[in-house]
Amino acid sequence: MIRASIMGGSGYSGGELLRLLIAHPEIEVVQVSSRSHLGEYVYQVHPNLRKQTQLKFSDPDAMQPVDLLFLALPHGTTQHKIDQFAGLASRIIDLSADFRLHDPKDYQHWYGSPHAAPGWLPKFVYGLPELHRDDLRNAHYASGVGCNATASNLALLPLVKAGLLESGQPVIIELKVGSSEGGAEGNPGTHHPERSGVVRTFSAFGHRHTAEVIQELGLSKVTLTMTSVELVRGVLATAHATVKAGVTSKDLWKAYRATAADNPFVRIVKEQRGIYRVPEPKVLAGSNYADLGFELDEASGQVVSICAIDNLMKGASGTAVQCMNLMLGFDETLGLEFPGLHPI
Amino acid sequence: MIRASIMGGSGYSGGELLRLLIAHPEIEVVQVSSRSHLGEYVYQVHPNLRKQTQLKFSDPDAMQPVDLLFLALPHGTTQHKIDQFAGLASRIIDLSADFRLHDPKDYQHWYGSPHAAPGWLPKFVYGLPELHRDDLRNAHYASGVGCNATASNLALLPLVKAGLLESGQPVIIELKVGSSEGGAEGNPGTHHPERSGVVRTFSAFGHRHTAEVIQELGLSKVTLTMTSVELVRGVLATAHATVKAGVTSKDLWKAYRATAADNPFVRIVKEQRGIYRVPEPKVLAGSNYADLGFELDEASGQVVSICAIDNLMKGASGTAVQCMNLMLGFDETLGLEFPGLHPI
Amino acid sequence: MIRASIMGGSGYSGGELLRLLIAHPEIEVVQVSSRSHLGEYVYQVHPNLRKQTQLKFSDPDAMQPVDLLFLALPHGTTQHKIDQFAGLASRIIDLSADFRLHDPKDYQHWYGSPHAAPGWLPKFVYGLPELHRDDLRNAHYASGVGCNATASNLALLPLVKAGLLESGQPVIIELKVGSSEGGAEGNPGTHHPERSGVVRTFSAFGHRHTAEVIQELGLSKVTLTMTSVELVRGVLATAHATVKAGVTSKDLWKAYRATAADNPFVRIVKEQRGIYRVPEPKVLAGSNYADLGFELDEASGQVVSICAIDNLMKGASGTAVQCMNLMLGFDETLGLEFPGLHPI
Amino acid sequence: MIRASIMGGSGYSGGELLRLLIAHPEIEVVQVSSRSHLGEYVYQVHPNLRKQTQLKFSDPDAMQPVDLLFLALPHGTTQHKIDQFAGLASRIIDLSADFRLHDPKDYQHWYGSPHAAPGWLPKFVYGLPELHRDDLRNAHYASGVGCNATASNLALLPLVKAGLLESGQPVIIELKVGSSEGGAEGNPGTHHPERSGVVRTFSAFGHRHTAEVIQELGLSKVTLTMTSVELVRGVLATAHATVKAGVTSKDLWKAYRATAADNPFVRIVKEQRGIYRVPEPKVLAGSNYADLGFELDEASGQVVSICAIDNLMKGASGTAVQCMNLMLGFDETLGLEFPGLHPI
Repeated sequence: MIRASIMGGSGYSGGELLRLLIAHPEIEVVQVSSRSHLGEYVYQVHPNLRKQTQLKFSDPDAMQPVDLLFLALPHGTTQHKIDQFAGLASRIIDLSADFRLHDPKDYQHWYGSPHAAPGWLPKFVYGLPELHRDDLRNAHYASGVGCNATASNLALLPLVKAGLLESGQPVIIELKVGSSEGGAEGNPGTHHPERSGVVRTFSAFGHRHTAEVIQELGLSKVTLTMTSVELVRGVLATAHATVKAGVTSKDLWKAYRATAADNPFVRIVKEQRGIYRVPEPKVLAGSNYADLGFELDEASGQVVSICAIDNLMKGASGTAVQCMNLMLGFDETLGLEFPGLHPI
Repeated sequence: MIRASIMGGSGYSGGELLRLLIAHPEIEVVQVSSRSHLGEYVYQVHPNLRKQTQLKFSDPDAMQPVDLLFLALPHGTTQHKIDQFAGLASRIIDLSADFRLHDPKDYQHWYGSPHAAPGWLPKFVYGLPELHRDDLRNAHYASGVGCNATASNLALLPLVKAGLLESGQPVIIELKVGSSEGGAEGNPGTHHPERSGVVRTFSAFGHRHTAEVIQELGLSKVTLTMTSVELVRGVLATAHATVKAGVTSKDLWKAYRATAADNPFVRIVKEQRGIYRVPEPKVLAGSNYADLGFELDEASGQVVSICAIDNLMKGASGTAVQCMNLMLGFDETLGLEFPGLHPI
Repeated sequence: MIRASIMGGSGYSGGELLRLLIAHPEIEVVQVSSRSHLGEYVYQVHPNLRKQTQLKFSDPDAMQPVDLLFLALPHGTTQHKIDQFAGLASRIIDLSADFRLHDPKDYQHWYGSPHAAPGWLPKFVYGLPELHRDDLRNAHYASGVGCNATASNLALLPLVKAGLLESGQPVIIELKVGSSEGGAEGNPGTHHPERSGVVRTFSAFGHRHTAEVIQELGLSKVTLTMTSVELVRGVLATAHATVKAGVTSKDLWKAYRATAADNPFVRIVKEQRGIYRVPEPKVLAGSNYADLGFELDEASGQVVSICAIDNLMKGASGTAVQCMNLMLGFDETLGLEFPGLHPI
Repeated sequence: MIRASIMGGSGYSGGELLRLLIAHPEIEVVQVSSRSHLGEYVYQVHPNLRKQTQLKFSDPDAMQPVDLLFLALPHGTTQHKIDQFAGLASRIIDLSADFRLHDPKDYQHWYGSPHAAPGWLPKFVYGLPELHRDDLRNAHYASGVGCNATASNLALLPLVKAGLLESGQPVIIELKVGSSEGGAEGNPGTHHPERSGVVRTFSAFGHRHTAEVIQELGLSKVTLTMTSVELVRGVLATAHATVKAGVTSKDLWKAYRATAADNPFVRIVKEQRGIYRVPEPKVLAGSNYADLGFELDEASGQVVSICAIDNLMKGASGTAVQCMNLMLGFDETLGLEFPGLHPI
């Protein structure tokens, strides 16, 4: 059994990690920290875990050495303590945004302040197995992924990998997101009577996850436009791009099928009948799948590529466990078998 | 034109009052106070009022004398300042819980502390026109009503008024309520990912609005059990009671019809076909109607009486305006004509 | 009083029309037809109208002559009976798609079959007052508007009217829509357990309302991409376009302010603080307002323009009543004063 | 490996069964029938199962013999074909209502027609392990359970088992239910714009599941009152009953703890702090847990006992798999480990 701990267990991605690790056949969870809920049973915060574990939240300043440490702390925290954390475990997976970007200049540009540990940036593999599976197999340090970046990157992955996109053309990605994306801390705008039923385009340009799409796909003119909708879990990315002249639907089918064949958690959803013809996040709640679909207007070369994920699973904790499986030599899908629910 | 002001305009009942008064043909709104939003346009807090008014929130310590003052302040506030407020206007309608109970002992029992202005309690008429229409016509001071108390009182009104209830039998009222009932201030439990989709029986016994049912209907063994559901506006009261031996459905029809005939905002919803056979709060959003229905099990004498309202309208601000209309000699329904939406 | 009737009153836009006309001070509603609900009280289908009217649904084959006839029948119906309807009233407002497009070829292209009454097409004014106010003042025949087309047309109106768009550049409009847009007839996909919580990009290209945007704004490369979200009423259009070189945010403010000044139902929502900084459909339920906002990336010239409406009001019945007011010489806003609710 | 098939796999409980059996380590799913979706991939109906199985729906008239047959057919179907089904498998679990009641007179009373196979009624064990664990271990035929009956029976189980209820007193159970309870077939009332946001007390008295509470708990004066709320999966039962004189909260704690100790899927939720202090269905979506809580008013002896379940899991398919595990000698919890999600 591998001994693992979680720093930051009272938030949403920390709680989801805990759910996955408790049930994982090869992992023993040693400690889960939370300063604000210190001493409480984890099931008092995450009520789904009652009768699943008797763990209590630990003091973050009293963590024991383990084989693997998950960091689920607020953005901007781990870069200041990474040396300390590295002393606790030889393998680290950091779900925050601190080690996703390789270039300190990019970090400063998108996050507005210089990175506190730039020397650590090259040690981290960007933790999306669909892009870096082989690197992750040998990695000791993996970053997490932005949930919106992940939906965007996977929506475009088949097109980029097969070289079908017309270069230099703008890519506009419309993301529709649920309320859990904002984390477990509330604010006046997340008060239920205000947040309920919204369709709110809260960020037209400049979302930080854009940086991860640019870095990972090598695209230049990328816009992420964010709209909150009535949903707790889930992201839908609807990406508008332009394919090279002459590219056909057949070419796209081939590209998407290849991506689905290469990646156990990628599925194509493109049906001619029934209710579920296109990717949708709601049936993915709790699942690590990324569902992809597309439509091509052959006349104009405009393509709409769609990706649905659960932001807390494929967009955060599920992908982190998938990285862990690769880093530790387990089957990539171990402990990630829950397929989601229908109806829900 | 009657000159009116509102103390406490940034909360939900204050905002709803403002919407109603702005559109009211006989009222000129002079000032709306808010300490926390002082100087902001009211439409920055209540976005529905944009292009409806250019009012800004006033300093609560700088209110001008007016004909009528609405108090929409937090519970426990107005009893400490009632003399001061009485100096500003000869007519006051206080939406808080401070002047609903007539007996200071009842106040202490249900609210846990002695009342700060017991001498004022007898001056206030309990502000539910369906119970106190004539008194309100001559009143200078009217209390507001508890939203759950109102749904409960109106559910039982036909039965009590017609003397159909078996005396001494327990009355169990199950209330299903939306999130706006908790007010505009959030807490960890109202954070959207936590509050969304709940069915949460948060109070089995002892809800404070019970006191208003006991006082107004003269019942003794009354239980209000509160369950939060996924809804912003609305209360549904499902009241379980026992009728006297021999009472038939026909008797109930007669009693409910009499109540609907006497009260312009009471409707009976009891259909044999279609989708909307029973009272439901969702079609009442924004409306001052109270929809009533019932089922009687003649064999056992068990009756289920149902009342649906919008908690911010019939359960608060709509009823306050209805009281105002009576106090000022206007048509009782003036400015309260919006019937709600279908679908919604 | 003007005598008006509605053909097709059991659907959603018919019901909304009825609500508006019943409360309209200058209109007497004579008849409301429904073949499927013939003889039922209208409040049995539209429960919000109980105690508002005692009208029953009439036989569509037994309509009396009136001053003004509203047609709220399924698409493809009125073009076959327009001569007959024209015999009943000298003024007609047809909410269906049958008389929105002026060119029979466009109709055939987008609707897939030849138009049955092409000679009538030029007699109809496209019923969006923000585009055709003067023509509507003299019109006897006005078409309805597509709800998605209206959100799109109003999102782009300030930019088009001020000539700020770079010509020839693609315009991508992402529309997020509620379930009432599909009408009152259900299908397997609208069954609540399936439709609840969806984020479903059901049409990437080729939505029929695209034709109304092309016709009315004179744009060529327009894509409407449709996504269903958890919402009953409401449309949000997020339009991605490109402005001419050198256009600044200041220019856009000027253009949007001019549109809001010219049109009583257009508001700009673009705040720096508070919860409601951008247009959102939920606070517009029941209201005829169209809320507009924008963001400009001056460096790239990319603009995101946003419009929120209630699809059954500004996107259908509200705009139809607004047209009626213009056609009959009433104040344009008469009977359309309800501003929406907060919270909801 | 045990070979099992499902009759009726396109409905909600059939789909949920399939999800559970596919993942079950001891079961091989041989066939899943559906007349209406014959030949389609099961993942076209249940989109969560894509990449989980390549099964297609089989012809219900061409089922092969297996070790265990699950019947997930509409109520009133299996009683007519039970002999035929018994020829296909020596073990049968029937999720419908056909074999839940032991007495044919009860069946006739509650279902309105004589039972077609009364001789089979005594062969079936009522399939709730919390009541009949030992009998199920030796059973060849188990019935399913009504979801509302299960929430009710489990809410009252600790009180009944410990003999704490005052005999002869009425028990009023208020059930709040989600839309999946009505099954996969829609009707006008389940059309999303109509069903969305409802709080609808659709049945005050006489719900058929009452019969299962009477039979299983031996209570006489039981009322189930049903209210639909905005929710897809989930039932909350709030049961109002009376305890014997002198019974204290301590007695109740003891009784509830005993029930939780005896039953792996029963948990007590009764916290003094945090957000999740009482049982709630939403965190149980996909889980087989039944969460119990209670409040006692010692002065009056009134008790409110609460049970939350997922209607498709503990209320149907999860309990059926639990029965299967017992019947086949597996660990009772095998394949039922998913604990639900937080947040959701």
